[in-house]
Amino acid sequence: MYKRSENCPMKDICVQNGNGLTHIKELSDRAAMYDHARMFAHVTLEPGRSIGYHIHEKETEFYYILKGEGVFNDNGTEVIVRPGDICATAHGEHHGMENRSAENLEMIALIVLDN
Amino acid sequence: MYKRSENCPMKDICVQNGNGLTHIKELSDRAAMYDHARMFAHVTLEPGRSIGYHIHEKETEFYYILKGEGVFNDNGTEVIVRPGDICATAHGEHHGMENRSAENLEMIALIVLDN
Repeated sequence: MYKRSENCPMKDICVQNGNGLTHIKELSDRAAMYDHARMFAHVTLEPGRSIGYHIHEKETEFYYILKGEGVFNDNGTEVIVRPGDICATAHGEHHGMENRSAENLEMIALIVLDN
Repeated sequence: MYKRSENCPMKDICVQNGNGLTHIKELSDRAAMYDHARMFAHVTLEPGRSIGYHIHEKETEFYYILKGEGVFNDNGTEVIVRPGDICATAHGEHHGMENRSAENLEMIALIVLDN
């Protein structure tokens, strides 16, 4: 099966009390991932927008940077991440992501469940 | 945790008797995905190279096209896929991917296990 880009579910939501809306293009639903993952998405953060700092429990979230530059909050320490870098936030860890640049930040977000 | 692009494991292998080598940049290992996924990778197929046609059993593989143009063999039917398109090959299904263009084809590959 294949799906054209424009037919993927898309939503703009405030994520974890971040600044403004985050654009989320869903690449799969949870059922198609056997309930072993709950998000596989192409995420876009426009300049000034952010995903708020939050914890993950019994799951790991990956951010794979595709375009732009992000400020990744890795358990309280900020680091600049760029295309090709991979971020992983496992059980009991915290993260957040902010776009302080003038260009869109795009990344793949994948949440794999430990259940 | 974050990892710079250049520190990710990379390998060039022939995949499923395809043409030539496929470049695979691993974004996570299986253990970090709780044995619920066995591949999360950034895959590059140079012009003329391919991933051979093969079946998936008790798992689903997703290809998310990032750059270039691919010929996706979807259970025996060829279709051109482009950036933003998502391919899903579930239990009992077959697929392959070929780059017949003059530019590199890049995609995210994710294999989620049903176990």
